[in-house]
Amino acid sequence: MHILILGAAGMVGRKLAERLSRDGRLGKTDVTRMTLQDVVAPAKPNTSIPVELVTCDVVDQAAVAKLVAAKPDVIFHLAAIVSGEAEADFDKGYRINLEGTQYLIDAIRAIGGGYKPRVVFTSSIAVFGAPFPDKIGDEFFNTPLTSYGTQKTIGELLISDYTRKGLLDGISIRLPTICVRPGLPNKAASGFFSNIIREPLAGKEVVLPVSEDVRHWHASPRSAVGFLLHAGSMDTNAIGPRRALSMPGLSVTVGEQIAALDRVAGKSVTARIKRVPDQTITGIVAGWPRDFVTERALKLGFTTAEKTFDDIIRIHIEDELGGSFVT
Amino acid sequence: MHILILGAAGMVGRKLAERLSRDGRLGKTDVTRMTLQDVVAPAKPNTSIPVELVTCDVVDQAAVAKLVAAKPDVIFHLAAIVSGEAEADFDKGYRINLEGTQYLIDAIRAIGGGYKPRVVFTSSIAVFGAPFPDKIGDEFFNTPLTSYGTQKTIGELLISDYTRKGLLDGISIRLPTICVRPGLPNKAASGFFSNIIREPLAGKEVVLPVSEDVRHWHASPRSAVGFLLHAGSMDTNAIGPRRALSMPGLSVTVGEQIAALDRVAGKSVTARIKRVPDQTITGIVAGWPRDFVTERALKLGFTTAEKTFDDIIRIHIEDELGGSFVT
Repeated sequence: MHILILGAAGMVGRKLAERLSRDGRLGKTDVTRMTLQDVVAPAKPNTSIPVELVTCDVVDQAAVAKLVAAKPDVIFHLAAIVSGEAEADFDKGYRINLEGTQYLIDAIRAIGGGYKPRVVFTSSIAVFGAPFPDKIGDEFFNTPLTSYGTQKTIGELLISDYTRKGLLDGISIRLPTICVRPGLPNKAASGFFSNIIREPLAGKEVVLPVSEDVRHWHASPRSAVGFLLHAGSMDTNAIGPRRALSMPGLSVTVGEQIAALDRVAGKSVTARIKRVPDQTITGIVAGWPRDFVTERALKLGFTTAEKTFDDIIRIHIEDELGGSFVT
Repeated sequence: MHILILGAAGMVGRKLAERLSRDGRLGKTDVTRMTLQDVVAPAKPNTSIPVELVTCDVVDQAAVAKLVAAKPDVIFHLAAIVSGEAEADFDKGYRINLEGTQYLIDAIRAIGGGYKPRVVFTSSIAVFGAPFPDKIGDEFFNTPLTSYGTQKTIGELLISDYTRKGLLDGISIRLPTICVRPGLPNKAASGFFSNIIREPLAGKEVVLPVSEDVRHWHASPRSAVGFLLHAGSMDTNAIGPRRALSMPGLSVTVGEQIAALDRVAGKSVTARIKRVPDQTITGIVAGWPRDFVTERALKLGFTTAEKTFDDIIRIHIEDELGGSFVT
């Protein structure tokens, strides 16, 4: 099985490539070849599987056609610019997040001759915009309030329609906010959800800009990779024509995040969280989904790696910190 | 006020141009100029208002840019290929129904300098696909099961996002099935809803291919024009960011349609309906919406011209048959 990952240099793409390298298979099928694409050079994972690294832009139509011409069996489409950048640079957002997706699916269609790869499109809870119910169900309508969310919603629609027409075998999965996101603190409005766990565990002080009653929807990077693997290998006949699914996650308040950190790491760690309310961030976050009912995904076999937010913290300590942290 | 109608040679476009010509104004503002575009030459309405007729394709990007360069105040975007054709010709459907819409809104954006026209996008109940509730509410999710429905849903999303970014002042209205559609019987699967009224009134026999308990969602051509006029002149601030609205209509069964025809025109007319069940059409129609709750549209002042299906028949007799029919 030949696997193509678009956006393989990103956090989730890199972890997915590493996991596939480690497992050596996707579902029950051996991985015999991997192609890792990104606009910056992807890292070569440690594996005996033949890996090709490709540095190109998803809006380079010829380059995308060339990637698809090798007829990968499964394509993970993770390439996108993030919410904040898509909002700030309108043209770039539509070009990469919408046209890039169109180039991919049209390149697949152009191959013809019965070529019908599994395409896993990573969507986002940004397809939902306030006001919405406390728990967003599987049939709540898409009302994106950002260009990024609009582009992801359109991607979902295209994946469903191309699938319905038999041009590919697609599935769109809406990832929760990934927590704990490794690496440096970023300036995304959502950054604090990860920062308040990651930085204290690294012995650093961190600012909490919102009140502790802010509720949000989380999944660990390990869960995100698990969702992708399942989407890449599951029997898609069970899905039916509605090919976009909200993924399972954990709904917790910031206060519950901190209490979990306290249980897992102790008061000396949570003491590094400094409360500095920021009205702008508080306002942005107020428009974000807080909780979901993801019955369809659960029924289709998508599961999280964590049962509690304590687990999310432990996964971070295991996967990113080699099992230890700064007490 | 300068009004541009894209798709002005179509049934609804023609009626809209005629109504604007007759009224001489849109809302409270005088119409001082009209530009009527279609891929086939639009008819010149009988009016003293200066009218420009433009024959061009909506996927002729330069031609669309030229139409927009005149900075019309209100743009009615009715240009589209219909459901059956978009399904049969995948490329043409995406080109005209999606790219054509993108060319329009990008041409508007390219003008800049504060140019922000009202854009009324005609969408469709085809944004919904079965299974759905008996009555589809304002928050039910979009699950198109045709390429046409997919393209209309994407159009709605783009109109909302461009509006949110202040690039235009858009509104998408989802028209019910238009009944009674004048002209020749067409071969669209939905054709019989109009055929069974129009043909008997013209003294002709007609085939009813489904059972009388089939329920569907209708509005007269007069109502459709009324929705467009209201969308073109209303205060859009009241809508909020969710710029797509299901329009009001009437939910009736085929049996109720025939009973209404009986009341309005008599048994000699309904005797011209021949029941010849067609399993293919019955199957297609089974996946169509049957009824809606359109609270948002009603609250925003959208109203139908008819209270009963009897009214729909009377409107057809008045507007298309000069007040009489073949008894």
